[in-house]
Amino acid sequence: MGYTMQEQVDGEFDTVVEETVNALEDEGFGVLCDIDVQATFAKKLDREFRQYRILGACNPELAYQGLEDELELGALLPCNVIVYETDDGDIIVSAVDPKQLVGITDNSALDSISEDVFDRFERVLDTL
Amino acid sequence: MGYTMQEQVDGEFDTVVEETVNALEDEGFGVLCDIDVQATFAKKLDREFRQYRILGACNPELAYQGLEDELELGALLPCNVIVYETDDGDIIVSAVDPKQLVGITDNSALDSISEDVFDRFERVLDTL
Repeated sequence: MGYTMQEQVDGEFDTVVEETVNALEDEGFGVLCDIDVQATFAKKLDREFRQYRILGACNPELAYQGLEDELELGALLPCNVIVYETDDGDIIVSAVDPKQLVGITDNSALDSISEDVFDRFERVLDTL
Repeated sequence: MGYTMQEQVDGEFDTVVEETVNALEDEGFGVLCDIDVQATFAKKLDREFRQYRILGACNPELAYQGLEDELELGALLPCNVIVYETDDGDIIVSAVDPKQLVGITDNSALDSISEDVFDRFERVLDTL
């Protein structure tokens, strides 16, 4: 069983990132963290890498409920959506599967929240 | 089995956050993401919450190796270290257990990297 939900998307890389951020916002997620992996490796390691962005997506209402149920949950938040180029030049948008991620807490009180996030991520990927 | 590595720390909240960031830097981690959960909930939900910070820690060299072995690994990066107040006013610093987190990839090529991060997080928590 995989730990991500993937979608191959046509288009310009930066445009796909922008559309992903907008689609996340439409589903109630703010992007609290945006890591440009390519730029980070260039700066810190002086090494080339493919275009690769990590977007940390957080739905404040669901995060609040989750932290009320499980104080340590922040160690797993926000849920990431990554956008990257494949070796063939395709663009993949891939969200962490929140059921798999939150599953490591072994706290069934969080099941409905991670299912809700899963459904929202499915709709985000469907719009791209 | 828990999914975090915890340490209770004495001191002022902001000072503990600063010391945690410094200790992470000493072990080769940059903090690529710093989420003030209390401020986020105040702004987005107009709700009060305990002091709670999510620090996204990344060791570029280990992240590079990890992404070479597993392109989708970015969905789980960076590894979080959280700092929060308990109901009793104590301060907890808690790192996600990288073995548990990376374990959901089911890719044994990543074992040595997650063990390395685990050992570094142990040393970070020991210095606090």
